[in-house]
Parts: sequence; structure tokens; C-alpha cells
Amino acid sequence: MQQIIDFILEIDKLKGVTRKTRPLGLDRYENSAEHSWQIALLAASLSGYAAAPIDINRVILMLLVHDIGEIDTGDTIFFAEGGWAERKSDELAAVKRIFGLLPKTQAALYLDLWQEFEAAETPEARFANAADRAMPVLLNLAGNGGSWRENRISYARVVGKIAPPIQAGCPALWDYLLPRLEDARRRGFFGE
Amino acid sequence: MQQIIDFILEIDKLKGVTRKTRPLGLDRYENSAEHSWQIALLAASLSGYAAAPIDINRVILMLLVHDIGEIDTGDTIFFAEGGWAERKSDELAAVKRIFGLLPKTQAALYLDLWQEFEAAETPEARFANAADRAMPVLLNLAGNGGSWRENRISYARVVGKIAPPIQAGCPALWDYLLPRLEDARRRGFFGE
Repeated sequence: MQQIIDFILEIDKLKGVTRKTRPLGLDRYENSAEHSWQIALLAASLSGYAAAPIDINRVILMLLVHDIGEIDTGDTIFFAEGGWAERKSDELAAVKRIFGLLPKTQAALYLDLWQEFEAAETPEARFANAADRAMPVLLNLAGNGGSWRENRISYARVVGKIAPPIQAGCPALWDYLLPRLEDARRRGFFGE
Repeated sequence: MQQIIDFILEIDKLKGVTRKTRPLGLDRYENSAEHSWQIALLAASLSGYAAAPIDINRVILMLLVHDIGEIDTGDTIFFAEGGWAERKSDELAAVKRIFGLLPKTQAALYLDLWQEFEAAETPEARFANAADRAMPVLLNLAGNGGSWRENRISYARVVGKIAPPIQAGCPALWDYLLPRLEDARRRGFFGE
């Protein structure tokens, strides 16, 4: 019991890890804990549109744990150039430390889910990645460009990075997003 | 697809609903979105200690949607006196509105989960309620009294309110908490 409590208090720190996206209408950045909640519900609600049959419960738990390594590493904007491999290695060390607070069976389950998400090879992980990539896009589209405008990210860079994972995991969501991204480009939401 | 997107953007507002508890070490109140994330993981991690056999996936989804009505009503401190029935009726109207943004099958699933949580009669709902009630207790114990001290809540009031739901859903968690609550009382964490 003490191990579980130590874990749940340790992950409280994810509430203090800020991302580059803002909640709609709020004058602050969102944090990775509330983001994880939102994409779990995005995935649950979108499950009928997955590219392949999935175990949605596995997807939900995967999304709830997938950002926990950021407690040690912080969030890196998805559009950052380079350093990705080193960052992922640091995140792996972080989740091994944090999940390692738990009893072994539970720790192994969460670590498996984390690694499955990162590998993005199973239908569940592909769908989970699609939800994770799509959420800031939906917020930026609804929020006048949001982090794209703020960080002068180009349309080509956004589409180049997000199209493959979203198409792979949830093609119907990509079909929904593409015309809206094109419209957003015309409206000047991107840095060019 | 548009209905799902409308829903997921609407529930973004839960990130702006503040509770009375503070994340450990942060100078702000926690919001109901990050709280929902944390208790879903508390339940997932504690599932071996449930009072009765449970479908943990149902518990997790229940916890992810259980606070969504607060988007219209705001959070009420659990220790508030009176007005509970009216408040729950307002929350029901809120979740009907918000879940009603979704396609019918999805809306019905979430509404069922919400109502099951509120009724607290199934093993899943009892366990979910135990996790929900225990989380601010864990944060206050780790945070020098937190919202108890800030709002001058007495030991008797805390224990009277939280003991029944936590014992009903997760007795081992109550056995863990009780001596720590008694110790916290001696250390002056409560208003008396």
C-alpha cells in the first residue's frame, strides 16, 4: 500500500509540467496531467474510428501513463529539432524510476504500456499516438492558432509531423483535420 | 466526428474548474481535469485492494467522466453543509447537456457511468468513490494539512464524511489512512 501511495504522490508532479498549448480561454499553459485526462477521453470517444480493431481500455491506460516521464525531463515541444533519441532515453530512465516505486507487477504493466506507446507499432499504440498528436491541433484550431502562432511554427512543419501518426492511427480524424488546417493556413494561424 | 470534437472542446473547460486542494509544492489550486487523471491512476494502481471483484476499466472511465458536470456548476467542497440534492440535480442537467453533444450511444455510456458513480451502489462505483474521496486526503496529509487547515475543517467532520465511502470501496486504504489521520490531528492539521 505504501508503494502505491508513494507513486501516486510522486506523479502529482505531472500537474506542474507545462506544455506549450493553452486551455481554451485560460491565460496559462496546460499541464501534462490535464492533457493526459483529455486525450484519454478523446480516445474513448473516438474509438469507433480507429484504423484497426483495438482494446480501448488498453489505449486509455496507455494515455494516462504515457507522459509520466516528463516529471524528470519536462515537456519538449513536439516540433523541436533534434535531440529526440537522447530525450527518449532520459524519459525511459524517468519512467523506470517512477513506475519502480510501485509493486513489481504494476510497475511492469505501466512500463509495458509506456514502451508500447513509444514504439507505436500496435493498433492500440497507433491509435493512442493519433489522439495525443491531434489534441493540441484541435486546441490550436479552436484557439486562433495557439502554440503554432506563438512559436511561429510553419504549416508544412505541422502537417509533416502530425499527418503520419494521425493517419496511421485514426484516418477519419485526419480527413476531418486536413481541410481545417488548410483553412487555418489561409487565416494566418502559422508562422511561414 | 464533429459531435465528438464539439464534446472534447467543451470538456476543455474542466481544466478551469478549481478545487480546494493544491498540488504538492504548487502555489495554486488543482483543477478537476488533473484531479480526474490522478484518481484514475490511483484506482488503477489500487485495484487489487477493492472491497469486491471489479471491472477496473469501468472504474477508470467512470472516474474520467465523473466530474464533468462541474463545468456548469463548479466544484463544491465536499464538506459543505446542505444544498447537496439541489447541487446534484444541477450536475445531472449539466452532464445531460455536455454528454448530449456526443452521438447517442457514447452519450448514453457516459451518462450511465456518471449515474452509477453518483448512486455508489455497484462494486465499481464504490471503489471509484473511495479513490475520489481518498485523493485529497492523501494530498492534505502530504501537504501539512492543506485544505483542512485552510478551511478550518475539523477532524471529526473529515473522518465522518470520508470513512464510510472509503471503507465501503477500499477497506485496506482506510486501514492505511486512519492512523495517519490520527497522527495529523495530533500535529494540528485540522480546525477544531
